[in-house]
Amino acid sequence: MTEIAFIESVLTDVASYVRERYLDRTHLEVSTKTEANDLLTEVDLETQRRVVARINAQFPGDIVVAEEANLNVLPPDTHARTWFLDPIDGTQNFVRGIFPLFGVSLAFAQQGIVRSGGVMLPMNNDLFLGERGAGAFRSGKRLHVANVSSVALARADIDFSVPSHRDETLQRATRLIVKTGQIRCFCSAVVAMCSIASGDADIFFNVGLSPWDYAASQVILEEAGGKTSRLDGSPLHFFDKRRGVLATNGHIHAETLSLLD
Amino acid sequence: MTEIAFIESVLTDVASYVRERYLDRTHLEVSTKTEANDLLTEVDLETQRRVVARINAQFPGDIVVAEEANLNVLPPDTHARTWFLDPIDGTQNFVRGIFPLFGVSLAFAQQGIVRSGGVMLPMNNDLFLGERGAGAFRSGKRLHVANVSSVALARADIDFSVPSHRDETLQRATRLIVKTGQIRCFCSAVVAMCSIASGDADIFFNVGLSPWDYAASQVILEEAGGKTSRLDGSPLHFFDKRRGVLATNGHIHAETLSLLD
Repeated sequence: MTEIAFIESVLTDVASYVRERYLDRTHLEVSTKTEANDLLTEVDLETQRRVVARINAQFPGDIVVAEEANLNVLPPDTHARTWFLDPIDGTQNFVRGIFPLFGVSLAFAQQGIVRSGGVMLPMNNDLFLGERGAGAFRSGKRLHVANVSSVALARADIDFSVPSHRDETLQRATRLIVKTGQIRCFCSAVVAMCSIASGDADIFFNVGLSPWDYAASQVILEEAGGKTSRLDGSPLHFFDKRRGVLATNGHIHAETLSLLD
Repeated sequence: MTEIAFIESVLTDVASYVRERYLDRTHLEVSTKTEANDLLTEVDLETQRRVVARINAQFPGDIVVAEEANLNVLPPDTHARTWFLDPIDGTQNFVRGIFPLFGVSLAFAQQGIVRSGGVMLPMNNDLFLGERGAGAFRSGKRLHVANVSSVALARADIDFSVPSHRDETLQRATRLIVKTGQIRCFCSAVVAMCSIASGDADIFFNVGLSPWDYAASQVILEEAGGKTSRLDGSPLHFFDKRRGVLATNGHIHAETLSLLD
């Protein structure tokens, strides 16, 4: 089985578990991680457990890096076959909110470069897939970024994340916030980046992401014609120990960078 | 027919038209109003036409104030029976976006005070109703705000709105943005205010709303136990010619006000 076919199969299967738990979320057990607003639910843990078991069974020996439960460590061998999993990206929105702004994200990387990735928005049963060199697709339909070619007409998702990221976010993005046509903050990197891939947004800005947050969306977005970088314009590398991420529709990447401080 | 029964009936009926047009939105005609990002669609206009025709037929002589097409003027008689309609609140999200973050908002006011209001989120078929003194309900179930009692643990929707509002938004809300547990920006006042009424958020901040944007949500939110005010804490009045709106779960209204500049 190819990695992209595996990703599609696993995300489709696990989505029904996530849907069931979301619809019954009044009974949820919620704990906090490092910050009071950095939430972890039993659904994050169980989703991760199920996906990791599938990876181990299908691709024994592959490395798995995932957000929860001691798997959140980058491997010493940066060239190995490596899977990046965020079981629920947007856990806060899973716990609270009228709209289900969260997704399950799974990517496969080799030689330090993401080769294929998938994002499932379970409540919409909406599956985004991207494979390096082969394009990005949503429910089988090819994805293309929007043609929006100026920041003044663009839609940006500015991710204000947890309180400890706020000062840096405002310090770096104030000129962008003032100039951009439309501002949103959904607080789910996968929702924001897949929105750019589908032409529904143009810019995503976040000062502090980990590889499992963006690996799958990165290949989906790039294969849809978009561009990603660090906040200084240098390429995204999983192993560079840097955390800022800028993603755009490509047409306005340079203009967006020029508005960051 | 009582006003609240009328609101329920009209919003239920018009929702099917809005749903149909949303699912076919690739064929949408979109124009701009005063700013490039202040969009108007034919769906806004047709929704308004349908609702206004129903009001005129059921309550002849009542005044109608609505967002579009020359009805956006407050009446000279501030005590008359007055309807406030926003045919699509969140038009930008209707035009673009993976999630349908928009609603239809209709309120009835008399003696300058909103008596009853309804918000329909058409794509969720989710109806919020509030009647002064009689409570707020969502699909028949009584609404209550959340018990979140500190800004540091709260979820705030900071509405960055159109570019001309950005400097003022940042100038007044920076301390709130830095301190609040979670930040969102959905750019739909009715989604944000109904989220507080349902316990899914705690704070909504906007420097520039008109009465049709908040009239219905105001009575829903207040009847769910929340609080609304101007940005200096003074009461919301439709006819005071002021535009800033702060809405909270009530428990943290004073603390939120103390964080505004």
